[in-house]
Amino acid sequence: MERNLFTADHEAYRDTVREFVAREVVPQHSRWEDERWIDRSVFTAAAKHGIYGLQIPEEFGGAGEFDYRFRMVAAEEIANAHSLSFALTVSLQDDLVLHYLLDLTTPEQKRRWLPGFARGEIVGALAMTEPGTGSDLQAIRTNARRDGTDWILNGQKTFISSGIMADLVIVAARTDPSAGSRGFSLFVVERDTPGFKRGRKLDKIGLPAQDTAELFFDDVRVPAENLLGTKGRGLQHLMGHLPRERLGVAVKAIANCRAVFEETRRYCSERTAFGGAIGKFQHVRFELAEMAAEIDVAQAYVDKSVLAFNDGALTPVDAAKGKLHVSELQKRVVDRCMQLHGGYGYMRDYPVARAFVDTRIQTIYGGTSEIMKEIIGRDLAD
Amino acid sequence: MERNLFTADHEAYRDTVREFVAREVVPQHSRWEDERWIDRSVFTAAAKHGIYGLQIPEEFGGAGEFDYRFRMVAAEEIANAHSLSFALTVSLQDDLVLHYLLDLTTPEQKRRWLPGFARGEIVGALAMTEPGTGSDLQAIRTNARRDGTDWILNGQKTFISSGIMADLVIVAARTDPSAGSRGFSLFVVERDTPGFKRGRKLDKIGLPAQDTAELFFDDVRVPAENLLGTKGRGLQHLMGHLPRERLGVAVKAIANCRAVFEETRRYCSERTAFGGAIGKFQHVRFELAEMAAEIDVAQAYVDKSVLAFNDGALTPVDAAKGKLHVSELQKRVVDRCMQLHGGYGYMRDYPVARAFVDTRIQTIYGGTSEIMKEIIGRDLAD
Amino acid sequence: MERNLFTADHEAYRDTVREFVAREVVPQHSRWEDERWIDRSVFTAAAKHGIYGLQIPEEFGGAGEFDYRFRMVAAEEIANAHSLSFALTVSLQDDLVLHYLLDLTTPEQKRRWLPGFARGEIVGALAMTEPGTGSDLQAIRTNARRDGTDWILNGQKTFISSGIMADLVIVAARTDPSAGSRGFSLFVVERDTPGFKRGRKLDKIGLPAQDTAELFFDDVRVPAENLLGTKGRGLQHLMGHLPRERLGVAVKAIANCRAVFEETRRYCSERTAFGGAIGKFQHVRFELAEMAAEIDVAQAYVDKSVLAFNDGALTPVDAAKGKLHVSELQKRVVDRCMQLHGGYGYMRDYPVARAFVDTRIQTIYGGTSEIMKEIIGRDLAD
Amino acid sequence: MERNLFTADHEAYRDTVREFVAREVVPQHSRWEDERWIDRSVFTAAAKHGIYGLQIPEEFGGAGEFDYRFRMVAAEEIANAHSLSFALTVSLQDDLVLHYLLDLTTPEQKRRWLPGFARGEIVGALAMTEPGTGSDLQAIRTNARRDGTDWILNGQKTFISSGIMADLVIVAARTDPSAGSRGFSLFVVERDTPGFKRGRKLDKIGLPAQDTAELFFDDVRVPAENLLGTKGRGLQHLMGHLPRERLGVAVKAIANCRAVFEETRRYCSERTAFGGAIGKFQHVRFELAEMAAEIDVAQAYVDKSVLAFNDGALTPVDAAKGKLHVSELQKRVVDRCMQLHGGYGYMRDYPVARAFVDTRIQTIYGGTSEIMKEIIGRDLAD
Repeated sequence: MERNLFTADHEAYRDTVREFVAREVVPQHSRWEDERWIDRSVFTAAAKHGIYGLQIPEEFGGAGEFDYRFRMVAAEEIANAHSLSFALTVSLQDDLVLHYLLDLTTPEQKRRWLPGFARGEIVGALAMTEPGTGSDLQAIRTNARRDGTDWILNGQKTFISSGIMADLVIVAARTDPSAGSRGFSLFVVERDTPGFKRGRKLDKIGLPAQDTAELFFDDVRVPAENLLGTKGRGLQHLMGHLPRERLGVAVKAIANCRAVFEETRRYCSERTAFGGAIGKFQHVRFELAEMAAEIDVAQAYVDKSVLAFNDGALTPVDAAKGKLHVSELQKRVVDRCMQLHGGYGYMRDYPVARAFVDTRIQTIYGGTSEIMKEIIGRDLAD
Repeated sequence: MERNLFTADHEAYRDTVREFVAREVVPQHSRWEDERWIDRSVFTAAAKHGIYGLQIPEEFGGAGEFDYRFRMVAAEEIANAHSLSFALTVSLQDDLVLHYLLDLTTPEQKRRWLPGFARGEIVGALAMTEPGTGSDLQAIRTNARRDGTDWILNGQKTFISSGIMADLVIVAARTDPSAGSRGFSLFVVERDTPGFKRGRKLDKIGLPAQDTAELFFDDVRVPAENLLGTKGRGLQHLMGHLPRERLGVAVKAIANCRAVFEETRRYCSERTAFGGAIGKFQHVRFELAEMAAEIDVAQAYVDKSVLAFNDGALTPVDAAKGKLHVSELQKRVVDRCMQLHGGYGYMRDYPVARAFVDTRIQTIYGGTSEIMKEIIGRDLAD
Repeated sequence: MERNLFTADHEAYRDTVREFVAREVVPQHSRWEDERWIDRSVFTAAAKHGIYGLQIPEEFGGAGEFDYRFRMVAAEEIANAHSLSFALTVSLQDDLVLHYLLDLTTPEQKRRWLPGFARGEIVGALAMTEPGTGSDLQAIRTNARRDGTDWILNGQKTFISSGIMADLVIVAARTDPSAGSRGFSLFVVERDTPGFKRGRKLDKIGLPAQDTAELFFDDVRVPAENLLGTKGRGLQHLMGHLPRERLGVAVKAIANCRAVFEETRRYCSERTAFGGAIGKFQHVRFELAEMAAEIDVAQAYVDKSVLAFNDGALTPVDAAKGKLHVSELQKRVVDRCMQLHGGYGYMRDYPVARAFVDTRIQTIYGGTSEIMKEIIGRDLAD
Repeated sequence: MERNLFTADHEAYRDTVREFVAREVVPQHSRWEDERWIDRSVFTAAAKHGIYGLQIPEEFGGAGEFDYRFRMVAAEEIANAHSLSFALTVSLQDDLVLHYLLDLTTPEQKRRWLPGFARGEIVGALAMTEPGTGSDLQAIRTNARRDGTDWILNGQKTFISSGIMADLVIVAARTDPSAGSRGFSLFVVERDTPGFKRGRKLDKIGLPAQDTAELFFDDVRVPAENLLGTKGRGLQHLMGHLPRERLGVAVKAIANCRAVFEETRRYCSERTAFGGAIGKFQHVRFELAEMAAEIDVAQAYVDKSVLAFNDGALTPVDAAKGKLHVSELQKRVVDRCMQLHGGYGYMRDYPVARAFVDTRIQTIYGGTSEIMKEIIGRDLAD
């Protein structure tokens, strides 16, 4: 069904992003995947071109543009180029890190970090998860104790996206063991702080260029000015940012579904077997038709979510529903598209093959599907 | 997610419908099911109260109101009362029959039929399907040959909704065997026309009160004034009305999903086993959560479809996607909700049990899911 | 895949059953369904012909034949005739009631009940479930208190198969409220015992001829000779008989899958649309192929289960796996077969339509799919 | 359910294989994956220890043991070590290549090739597929024309397992363009034959150590003694060997399902979250229970298939049903197990992560699921 949420401004921005991606991303992406590293320079370029960071206020070098539709346009165009490692890294900055820096910062912190972020010179990471702690945030064991006005951080984090590349890492730590869920705080640990070490880059089955790392904090001294938000409210700050993250997952998911689907549709119309294009077979037609319907249906929900988010009306439960449904849909769509490619679907040369490995994490990170069901289920019980 | 397509007018209408259903439908519905017949009088009452037929121009006794949101509101309120046989009969009049009478009629025909329809005194039926012809309209064998200015109809129809009750039946017949898909025409056969016989009321597994019949036409003389639309364009007329029918199926489907889901949610919070409400079990919570997400996602598409339909922008493919997706969703939701009821779900006293049998036809009539996939698939191949 | 578990004896028995069903069941089944009652006389005839009750020792009028393959053959032949209400009633006697009478009875009780059972003059029922108690047996509130050597029973049961027809009802009641799971006992309540009343025949969505009833026990005096098995071990007796019941469900399920599948395959090769048999369409071919594979795979497990059962080696967990998998498969197979019938699948004249409503209870009774998962899951945790 | 197809001989062989795998495979497998190459020497060792090639007659250095249960035992033990690249390479030799060399060879060819094969000095490949030809064998364009008693081969193959490593390649080529399906023949092309070139090793998403290659044949002169089987019957030879290949896929699939499942069950009992082992959550328990049931059911079919194969009674359709069902089951099981691992499931350190990428090809090679459905569907139409 015709989508009707974009204006001419969004379409103009779409051209900008598409052009940027074609010029700066597509020619390198395959090399990045092989080298398991994205050139740092592309983020500087991306930030400069407004591919991300539009929300940064003008005084700090951004556009002050909070309309999430621009974020959606960017996600779609990056998805169309099948550049999933790049997509995820950008989304991490734009959907997560930046919003901590915008929402929880003092004016002084804003001045310190936002201009660099706007110029793509500062890349951030968010360090929540610990070994053995998945979605169970209260199990965080990294701790920070007072030493004068400073804090001394000790602990270990894992599965940290952009952990190797990050210039600043937002770390969740327990600051008051006796205060239950109100005993956690967030700290910004900057590159080269003594005692902060990066562990190995984790060897994932997908998203090779995207860096995911273990981080170690060994008596890391963090000055009081690097406390982010309110002391003791760390978990609440984390939870407050989850809807945007989950909307981001849903937006990337539907954009990737569509891109993989379109590529597959083309493939089926070109690839011949048994005397004709395979797209002529009823089974293939039906597979494509079912997927087209499911994608359009999910798109309606995601588009509506984006508009609701713009209005401040997207509830955590709405975001969880979108994250759950669309990431699960993506899994099914990518799998079916892969099957339609036959043996070629297993070859890394084909976008669908990379999508198969790169997107499998979507039902897991940002809260697993099981966590989404807990959130939705709890709401239903009220 | 919060829906935002209704205005105060729609909500006021919702009260009217709810009150009508509570007063005129709910107290009788169970008796109708047992007697396998809906009292004719309720349609007269329904038409008078504007439960259907709003679109009829004011000069013929209607409200001239084409906004499909009113139809949606009515469908939702009837679904909330789990009165599915009544729902289907009303939808047949409002989504199908009436639109043939509005769109294809001459001024004289309008004057003849619309006032009675507006007063609920004329109930119609649409006779397309024949034994052995399901969705394959070109296989229609009922034929009409000229005799002076009259037409002589011969043939047989089956699966005709409201076939026993109907005062007028719109019959698709072949009028020119040599003209292929352009050789069919539509005729209105009125009650008591000689040679027009009703066969048995078909014994369905669900929707017992809703009548579905075989009809026989044995040298039925139809005057030229009862030709509906353009001679030779019968199939095209049928196809032109399918999107509205399919939107109607999707609207009923999502409304019923929601009603059954809400009833089940309540059931799970009240029914206890192993020492607590079954809704406390993680499995039950997850089942409800998944369904809640799927229903909300589908609702976004249906709501968007209704607005697009109002704007004349709902394409046949969009309607097919909605019909396919939501009727299949409904099948899954009803089945899962039934399972959550345990043994009670198998008892006709429970709405979910009746929904299980009553709604199974939704993926079949109005074009099977397979036909929907053909329509969507053909569009993708372009 | 070729099955290889039957010998010539089983095949000869198959002929007997097939002939019996064709002569005594098929011509009446549709009338029974309409009348919501199976003629009592057919059970007398069935018992006499050895359609059930083969296990009864020869001294009491049976054949002393415990080989479950005979039971399987009978289930298959009744399934082939699509006589599901009859199938269930026979299975209730043969897989449940009889085994209580064989395994838990004193010699005196055997002499009292088995000859009548063998002649088909005694039909039994098993009254476990109570309103609001599904699979949660410990919640049983029906109680029996001592009065001299007699017991006085009070309580209420529901969902009792053959509850109206039964000559003797095995009732689970709490005999020692302080003894936890060891405080329940079984009693045989015979027809016409004062205080024993049958409630209404429940109105199910399927299996209309099969009677399912509420039973009421109001100060029912039960003599000590009617205590079944060991006092205080009622729950253990119930649980000990579940594997056979569940094997019975799986055997009926796979037999019905196959019968419905074969009928559908025939339908698809005969029914034409769009210029050919619908079985020629790739989608239909694929649907049939998938089902054929799934049925054959499940059959291998069920056949193996039957042989293991004969050897006393079928564990409760094995039986639960079969019950879970095959009843869920049956649900999917029947639903898909129904869809392939198009509108005809919704008409009671077609076996698939009746199977749709009649078999939906299979994932619910004898322990729901959820209970099966609990049993299997508990085993995995060890 | 207890399996009962193995004897003490098989269990002794199981110890041999397990010990071999633990000593020779497990310590290297991860390095092989990184290097994208399996040490050639392990095949020599494996052949010598009878890990494969048991079927080779004693006179040529084998054991003359055709009982497929030994093959199954080997597949299970390799699967238990999660060494999937090794598993596939062995299966290729044992289920495919060797049987061409056993069944289609002249006595002279047997003497030439079998002893080397038995010593693990000859590794073979089977070159059927061409670019753009998947399952459509008749579209093969590689051709061989007579030149005296020799044949001159020209063409190109792709997706050839062990294509780089192979000492001899069995190539399907068209030898008589006018003879339709009877115009293809098989040739053995040996290492270093002029004009035979290996293309690049294909970059797959999984099975990195297992080599899959493109092969080029440019005026390759093949002597008459290297014609394999009957001239003109190449396609028939290929098709005759498919059941064994497909049984092999099913056997590997169920073995891998079980290994991944067991690893996951262990993981769920050890991994804690929200205050307990995640295996205590009802959702996790239910996931495991469903999988356990599905695996046991499928195992019954595969075990039965192996015995039927031993008896020469496994039909192509039976093999197709097993391949279809079990490879699809494997896909679902691996995916669900991965999800239960949360973020760890995405890390290559975990067997489930590697299984996810390594096994995705199972529904594709050896005939896609779609081809299996065609084969089964055709059988049903008879």
